[in-house]
Amino acid sequence: MAGNAFGERFRVTTFGESHGGVVGVVVDGCPAGHPFPRERIAAQLARRRPGQGRLSSARREPDEVEVGSGIDPESGLTLGTPIVMWVRNTDAKSQHYDELRELYRPSHADYTYDARYGLRFVAGGGRASARETVGRVAAGALAEDLLEASHGIEIVAWVDRVHEVAAPAVDPEAITREQVDRSEVRCPDPEAAARMTAAIEAARADRDTVGGVLRCVARGVPPGLGEPVFDKLSAALAGAMMSLPASRGFELGEGFAAVGMRGSEHNDAFVPDPQRQASTDGIRTRTNRSGGIQGGLSNGETVRFAVAFKPVATIFKPQDTVDRQGRAATYTARGRHDPCVLPRAVPMVEAMTALVLCDHLLRRLGARAEELGR
Amino acid sequence: MAGNAFGERFRVTTFGESHGGVVGVVVDGCPAGHPFPRERIAAQLARRRPGQGRLSSARREPDEVEVGSGIDPESGLTLGTPIVMWVRNTDAKSQHYDELRELYRPSHADYTYDARYGLRFVAGGGRASARETVGRVAAGALAEDLLEASHGIEIVAWVDRVHEVAAPAVDPEAITREQVDRSEVRCPDPEAAARMTAAIEAARADRDTVGGVLRCVARGVPPGLGEPVFDKLSAALAGAMMSLPASRGFELGEGFAAVGMRGSEHNDAFVPDPQRQASTDGIRTRTNRSGGIQGGLSNGETVRFAVAFKPVATIFKPQDTVDRQGRAATYTARGRHDPCVLPRAVPMVEAMTALVLCDHLLRRLGARAEELGR
Amino acid sequence: MAGNAFGERFRVTTFGESHGGVVGVVVDGCPAGHPFPRERIAAQLARRRPGQGRLSSARREPDEVEVGSGIDPESGLTLGTPIVMWVRNTDAKSQHYDELRELYRPSHADYTYDARYGLRFVAGGGRASARETVGRVAAGALAEDLLEASHGIEIVAWVDRVHEVAAPAVDPEAITREQVDRSEVRCPDPEAAARMTAAIEAARADRDTVGGVLRCVARGVPPGLGEPVFDKLSAALAGAMMSLPASRGFELGEGFAAVGMRGSEHNDAFVPDPQRQASTDGIRTRTNRSGGIQGGLSNGETVRFAVAFKPVATIFKPQDTVDRQGRAATYTARGRHDPCVLPRAVPMVEAMTALVLCDHLLRRLGARAEELGR
Amino acid sequence: MAGNAFGERFRVTTFGESHGGVVGVVVDGCPAGHPFPRERIAAQLARRRPGQGRLSSARREPDEVEVGSGIDPESGLTLGTPIVMWVRNTDAKSQHYDELRELYRPSHADYTYDARYGLRFVAGGGRASARETVGRVAAGALAEDLLEASHGIEIVAWVDRVHEVAAPAVDPEAITREQVDRSEVRCPDPEAAARMTAAIEAARADRDTVGGVLRCVARGVPPGLGEPVFDKLSAALAGAMMSLPASRGFELGEGFAAVGMRGSEHNDAFVPDPQRQASTDGIRTRTNRSGGIQGGLSNGETVRFAVAFKPVATIFKPQDTVDRQGRAATYTARGRHDPCVLPRAVPMVEAMTALVLCDHLLRRLGARAEELGR
Repeated sequence: MAGNAFGERFRVTTFGESHGGVVGVVVDGCPAGHPFPRERIAAQLARRRPGQGRLSSARREPDEVEVGSGIDPESGLTLGTPIVMWVRNTDAKSQHYDELRELYRPSHADYTYDARYGLRFVAGGGRASARETVGRVAAGALAEDLLEASHGIEIVAWVDRVHEVAAPAVDPEAITREQVDRSEVRCPDPEAAARMTAAIEAARADRDTVGGVLRCVARGVPPGLGEPVFDKLSAALAGAMMSLPASRGFELGEGFAAVGMRGSEHNDAFVPDPQRQASTDGIRTRTNRSGGIQGGLSNGETVRFAVAFKPVATIFKPQDTVDRQGRAATYTARGRHDPCVLPRAVPMVEAMTALVLCDHLLRRLGARAEELGR
Repeated sequence: MAGNAFGERFRVTTFGESHGGVVGVVVDGCPAGHPFPRERIAAQLARRRPGQGRLSSARREPDEVEVGSGIDPESGLTLGTPIVMWVRNTDAKSQHYDELRELYRPSHADYTYDARYGLRFVAGGGRASARETVGRVAAGALAEDLLEASHGIEIVAWVDRVHEVAAPAVDPEAITREQVDRSEVRCPDPEAAARMTAAIEAARADRDTVGGVLRCVARGVPPGLGEPVFDKLSAALAGAMMSLPASRGFELGEGFAAVGMRGSEHNDAFVPDPQRQASTDGIRTRTNRSGGIQGGLSNGETVRFAVAFKPVATIFKPQDTVDRQGRAATYTARGRHDPCVLPRAVPMVEAMTALVLCDHLLRRLGARAEELGR
Repeated sequence: MAGNAFGERFRVTTFGESHGGVVGVVVDGCPAGHPFPRERIAAQLARRRPGQGRLSSARREPDEVEVGSGIDPESGLTLGTPIVMWVRNTDAKSQHYDELRELYRPSHADYTYDARYGLRFVAGGGRASARETVGRVAAGALAEDLLEASHGIEIVAWVDRVHEVAAPAVDPEAITREQVDRSEVRCPDPEAAARMTAAIEAARADRDTVGGVLRCVARGVPPGLGEPVFDKLSAALAGAMMSLPASRGFELGEGFAAVGMRGSEHNDAFVPDPQRQASTDGIRTRTNRSGGIQGGLSNGETVRFAVAFKPVATIFKPQDTVDRQGRAATYTARGRHDPCVLPRAVPMVEAMTALVLCDHLLRRLGARAEELGR
Repeated sequence: MAGNAFGERFRVTTFGESHGGVVGVVVDGCPAGHPFPRERIAAQLARRRPGQGRLSSARREPDEVEVGSGIDPESGLTLGTPIVMWVRNTDAKSQHYDELRELYRPSHADYTYDARYGLRFVAGGGRASARETVGRVAAGALAEDLLEASHGIEIVAWVDRVHEVAAPAVDPEAITREQVDRSEVRCPDPEAAARMTAAIEAARADRDTVGGVLRCVARGVPPGLGEPVFDKLSAALAGAMMSLPASRGFELGEGFAAVGMRGSEHNDAFVPDPQRQASTDGIRTRTNRSGGIQGGLSNGETVRFAVAFKPVATIFKPQDTVDRQGRAATYTARGRHDPCVLPRAVPMVEAMTALVLCDHLLRRLGARAEELGR
């Protein structure tokens, strides 16, 4: 497998280059009999789309999804067969193609793709473009619909920091997508949102870019998701998030801040759950520094984590670089590019979270011998 | 697959519980004809072993490896067939077994394993014990031997921080394992090492524990390792590190600190390589804020990243918890446990790094059609 | 993974239902830099298509392939990224839909799909239709182009038997697709072809159907393809062929006839190869009863095998069956269906052979440690 | 993955060379809470062992299994963690080692392993020896215990033909292992068994060998096992059987004989099940020419298939061959070898059947969305 597929039982394979024919996804392993959530998919794709406002690029990507297979036309239910979805690339002008073909843009994938494959899709970044995430977001919206229907799981991500502007702490048990979407920058705190917007605008004015930190929670995750050792839920989430374009760091629960605590400060005491006393599931933790995962498996508390995104590599200042022959050159970006990916990364992080959880919900089936007899 | 295997082409499956018969590993996909590196494996296992000094627990785990298959007895070369290696568990006393069976230790895997499987191996943490990493370290030592022989790749990890004690920056191009091992705490800076040791001793004296941060570099990684989209080298490393016991965070290159930079500060300018002018490989970056990975693929610079480890969950103070019936209880740990995992985590991080790189070195073969004809 | 993907390194995932939107395939792992073989793909799809002559159904499936990704628009070379290809379903009338929804057609997948998924795509057999093989044939044509370009490998399948009409033996070293395609029934022996055609016409006249046997050879396969133990080349071919609709048997080399031989009659003596004396590859076998595979690995001789196909399940006579409530009923097929799948199965068998060989050519890379340094 | 693993959710990886340290298996994905069936494993290994009587070689392989992990020592239940089992190789004399190192035995894996790996384990056939199946049989016995406990599934294989001696048809609904084991040759018909024994003895007397056909049934398989398209139950069984040493053909149900039937003769009419009227599962077929699998999925009828095994390649007559330099040579086998593998292949075929069914029983979980909420 060449790295374009994710998940073991709820398995998505994305395809497509930014300025090629289509971008899309095949979902193999979606359980049968679930109402296909067209609106939810459209809604999350709309949140991912560029051109949503002042903060993102002016590109038009209408992102109309075509669903080619896997749905029963009569009932609208999933068939259990592969679901293919794609969006056509319509706005694919490549103005400075000749220059891009010869030069390696700093901190982009141009050079590394050439080093691996001997060629690359030049226009628009090709496969390395964030446009690839269209397929992830579409599949993720399907996954979160399954998670919600089966367990009432809710996934919400938001912008916690942009450059030097950090938002105040958010209640992970209460935050909603509606609150997140109140600002274009997708930070639920209005005051911080305003300052983040200003920071992004300032970077744009300087022909520069900024990064930031997203936080994400998943509420309602049942205990026991994740597999021991290599496929811990924490490892799966980390791999998923670090597969997103521009991500540079991941932390679970207290994350790097846990380093400043002693064990007695960091441990989460178990307490009886007043709601569900006297059962294995009647167990809660008093605190949630573990971020809902212990020993690599979910413990029934809210899963929470953070992802760091670097500043966008496309800046509009001259930069030193080399050409394909290794000769020194200068590159200055042109075209339309976001000065900050964070707002649009929100649905991407939610999608990857949903894909991980849905896959592990399926993988948990059969963990106990008694389930075989069903 | 149930989470006990790692890697696609250099594939390891670990097995064993802490106080069961054996812990070990099967390596499937090791290329044929490589001299089996018994000493390197023994050396890395010795670095992983508890009881190495004052800082780790007094347990004796001689960790003699038995190699059961995959090596040509005549030449000592790998055969290309699965290599099974295991270590017997010899010192498996479980004093307070009855208590552990009924109580859930806070921030351990006891509850989550029960929630998933309906039972667990009680003594010594079973499968969730860090003793599982014996198999990883043995396989990782084999992998790094292949990396060194084929590309001169060097992997070095060290302790960068323990609780509130941070070491000064280390030169990623120069640091060696010898420098790391000069102190028992595995921090190459003697002064910081002494303060880290004191912090660990202080925690132990308080019946408490501490965490920290490891840094790791891989030098000599050729460009083009990693697969686009989901199996980026960054994603693979993140997943690998977050699969280690007690890890809570991962960052590549500048990581979370990249958030404080603008694109113009973070981008790595390309420069001609004076050594290898006029070829695709004659390309370097002036800085290495990307940590050797761009667009998810290695760019030929030193791969560098950090991993955060939480404080050890086993503290020797009374803690609130619940029993298997969900009733409130108190638990106080007994036995021998490290107050800090960081020194012993060094070879674990090196092993996982080697496993990722070796797997991706194999996965890169065939990326270009011209290789098919070989 | 839910069974819709094939291959490990040259990995194809097919999608689509017979009367749904599209049928197609994503190829993940195609090496970069290969000229995309549009004509070869079109040619093999044309050979697979129904409505080619008197022997197949009158359905119109123009099978125009759209290629949505993975090809460099400038050079026409493969990019190393996923290649998605699909064909729209245009002729999707479903006349007796209501009946099909309630009744289970004997020896079809209707009942078993319902048993597994609780619902099924009723019209045209849905996912279980042989139309699914469009994706296989498209991907297989790409694979065989890679095989030919890199090693000169040639794959040819032909109809060896239809019902009671067996063709005389064919020279596996000389048979060509041109010879095969001289008759509509795809048997290279004209006299046998005529009798096979008569047998098919007779069955049709009786509202009945017939099966048959295909033979296939792959010439030029280098030695050492296949993996020991579970992924033997023989096992991969068997699994591939038995995944085709209506296949009921597979045999390699002498196959079931080997049972009538003693070891001294069946063994293939090694002989020096006059062309390539004094090297490991300077080795041939005098006979090829093994069918080019020994110990599960190719030995450099022509790979040859046979596949049995049952008579088509869709007959136009009344049959006893039950409805979804398990009540006795009678079903008589209507519509357009081939009385014999054999002629159209030829490109399907070739495609699956190419997929297996291409995957194993890629999997062989890295079998020896010396390859790591490349 | 390098071909030494089988199954997706009940995943076994075998390891070991015939004359190396151990042969064994790791099972990853065994559900938790099942009583570990030590006796059943020992019993099937005993049936696989050479030296059981006159017909097999005189080698002593006591085959005492050591279980190193995965079992709760207190309860004897499976833990859900990897189960490692191995048998030490004790009787590993290699008399004519020097000769074997230089010569390629005809129709063995010597040459093909060298072609792939550049070296091979010379003594006893190494990894290509049928001794590798120890791990399969051990894991298969565990799998069939799960199948029996959860669904009452019974798997029985027997010898249907040896060379030219064919046994009369056996009732697939009634045949038992006890009946099979009444004769050393494992043919339930006493008269045929006697003639098969004579054929084997005659071959041995001629320093020659014979092959044969095994048949196998699995009763009680619930409907809906198998995955559409590539991972059909039929494809999985075919691949599994063709991965066994010396297998050359596979057929399901009527197999190659289906070719002589018309559709009206081959189709299995559905009939209401008098026992389970008026439910989806209240459906039977009047005949079972499909061998219990339709559209690639089980239909609730008895799964039945046949496997052809070639005559053993090790004959005690001089044979033409070449040495590693490609020079003509003569080879005459020495040592102890069975003249016919069929009797010992019975537990191997049963094991592979159990592995396929257990894997697909686990894979079926989650086929319907309603299962996610459990």
